[in-house]
Amino acid sequence: MPAGAAPFTAAEYARRLALTRAEMARRGIELMFVTDPSNQAWLTGYDGWSFYVHQGVLLPMQGDPIWWGRYMDSVGAGRTCWMETTHIHGYADNYVQSTERHPMQDLAGHIRRLGLETARIGVEMENYYYSAKAHAVLAQELPNAELVDATALVNWQRIVKSEEELGFIRKAARISEKVITTAVEKAEPGLRKNELVAEIYHAALTGVGEDWGDYPAIVPLTPSGLDATAAHLTWNGEKMRAGEATFFELSGCYRRYHAPLCRTVYLGTPPDEMRAAEVAQMEGIEAGLNAARAGNRTCDIANAFMDALRRHGIKREGRAGYPVGLSYPPDWGERTASIRTEDQTVLQPGMVFHFMPALWMDSWGLETTETILIREDGAAEALCNVPRKLFVKG
Amino acid sequence: MPAGAAPFTAAEYARRLALTRAEMARRGIELMFVTDPSNQAWLTGYDGWSFYVHQGVLLPMQGDPIWWGRYMDSVGAGRTCWMETTHIHGYADNYVQSTERHPMQDLAGHIRRLGLETARIGVEMENYYYSAKAHAVLAQELPNAELVDATALVNWQRIVKSEEELGFIRKAARISEKVITTAVEKAEPGLRKNELVAEIYHAALTGVGEDWGDYPAIVPLTPSGLDATAAHLTWNGEKMRAGEATFFELSGCYRRYHAPLCRTVYLGTPPDEMRAAEVAQMEGIEAGLNAARAGNRTCDIANAFMDALRRHGIKREGRAGYPVGLSYPPDWGERTASIRTEDQTVLQPGMVFHFMPALWMDSWGLETTETILIREDGAAEALCNVPRKLFVKG
Repeated sequence: MPAGAAPFTAAEYARRLALTRAEMARRGIELMFVTDPSNQAWLTGYDGWSFYVHQGVLLPMQGDPIWWGRYMDSVGAGRTCWMETTHIHGYADNYVQSTERHPMQDLAGHIRRLGLETARIGVEMENYYYSAKAHAVLAQELPNAELVDATALVNWQRIVKSEEELGFIRKAARISEKVITTAVEKAEPGLRKNELVAEIYHAALTGVGEDWGDYPAIVPLTPSGLDATAAHLTWNGEKMRAGEATFFELSGCYRRYHAPLCRTVYLGTPPDEMRAAEVAQMEGIEAGLNAARAGNRTCDIANAFMDALRRHGIKREGRAGYPVGLSYPPDWGERTASIRTEDQTVLQPGMVFHFMPALWMDSWGLETTETILIREDGAAEALCNVPRKLFVKG
Repeated sequence: MPAGAAPFTAAEYARRLALTRAEMARRGIELMFVTDPSNQAWLTGYDGWSFYVHQGVLLPMQGDPIWWGRYMDSVGAGRTCWMETTHIHGYADNYVQSTERHPMQDLAGHIRRLGLETARIGVEMENYYYSAKAHAVLAQELPNAELVDATALVNWQRIVKSEEELGFIRKAARISEKVITTAVEKAEPGLRKNELVAEIYHAALTGVGEDWGDYPAIVPLTPSGLDATAAHLTWNGEKMRAGEATFFELSGCYRRYHAPLCRTVYLGTPPDEMRAAEVAQMEGIEAGLNAARAGNRTCDIANAFMDALRRHGIKREGRAGYPVGLSYPPDWGERTASIRTEDQTVLQPGMVFHFMPALWMDSWGLETTETILIREDGAAEALCNVPRKLFVKG
């Protein structure tokens, strides 16, 4: 696999570098050290489950980016990045989880060799893969550099998707449709939850036609009954029961791109209050989609949704969505804008959000969500085509 | 689900608190702020896919630990932790991924209310879930506290497993056997790799008998051919081919406990050099198991393994294993001891390691590994029972 095995065209990567460097220039940043695996992949194509050790991408203002990581993973970098292998650097294995050495010492050496040890360097202070220790060691190693917080600098460049990226997200959406449909069809009293999740994974990974399924950045969430009043419990071996609601928070994944989708199934006859909430939720979703237009703001979506709920006597606070696209665990959100009342992000064509108008009540949860695309004109497009309702079985 | 739904006995959690507090006392630490999800679960039972937002456990020297996280996840904490809900605190949703507020501001308020704002506080500087930003904000909020690096303080208390924990790991081992056997049986030329991984997940999650499968902390790694020269590439939609080796790096998971296991399958007739490497690797594994005795050190295992390889003319460097047990993504290792030549950890009965004597060569990879238990007497016990060899098919 020669350099260039990354999934997108050279023009697409050039677009990404140009966007990122324009923002670096605006902030006077001469070098970015990118640790977010999604940002690394977006810039270079790097793809591997190696983010549990220190690694990252060095992006100076000129020349190709440099992928840097554990030596054994530099082989994988050579097989997945578009850059020549001269731009891939591995550090020795005795830096890994050592109490005597730290990989940032090795990284600092590369920065010195680039002549950038006194530069203004952007680091992602708020990221899973840039630890407090990593920052402390890098600052110590480069006393004359100016390390500035560039959290989400790259993430913000990702928020408007290219046509190539939308192609990937639409493939993920086809897989999401299959996965949710499988979950709804299989759900029945007596089925153990882990067996249901096994079917969900099987549907997700076999994919649709030629489009194979990748691992979603969040595992399937499928809580029932009182567990569904909590937001993020994973499955267990309990049997599904009549008289309980179960929500499915799932996403297909095509080559790291996601299109999350949630639906809720009730086994039996749902209580009136859940039916009433369903009506309110559907109205809220319609209102939100209608407000999700280019030129409007993220808060307009949240307000339209919550206003509709309020008309039905339901008070709902908190976030109701976030941008999605390329992601690695532990989160499929992009961590930039939020669909919430205080967020002022202006909507642009090509933005993709997981619009997440879930309701977690005292004794049940009702999740019905859509991955939506902001269009040139008109209301947002829901990218998945699955009936938008509370599914009732039996 | 009342307080006490955590998977272990009260005595087991008391044991864990006592061990952790003894080490805190030794280091003069009055309060631990524990962010590693595995450490949180080990101390409190907390289990949820919510580690993508800031959360943690406050452990003072007296009283029950306090789980702290996003408000919507405090519901899940109430359902999975053994403490009373008075010891569960949630912060408001407008702290989540905000550029104006940071959750550590809320945490600092709790520390002040505990009267510990001038205490010596242990934080996990080297952890995915304690960002550089989180540390900076906490330090700013608590100017009179002494924040000290207590990375792996709790992890080290986990290295010797209790009988209750060994029971969980043995269940995971049964699932690992099933998963590896499934992978080897299904592998054949023409099978798409994503379809194979779908079968692997299905086997893992359906579990064995009553013992349901949980999600492993690392996704299945199943690279073939040249991709198997790299360590951590995930699957794609390519077909398996005759004349290629594929390694399977997998783990069953029972309620967050792991027993990783790797085997390699060759479709066709393996080249002589791979057969020769197999002989060397098997000798190396035997030598390693024999050296893995209580009273010996981790380096003794590594040296015994590498000496055996050397006798066969194979030079192998780097880490050859790590402790395993309770884990969350992105790593199933415990990040304490390493099986490598420079590590001096003394082996004790009840320690469990993934002994990882993998060989990554120029044109193929050969992974054959075991999860091993250090016993009172004698060589280590391999916890999984799958033939230890290169599998050859067709």
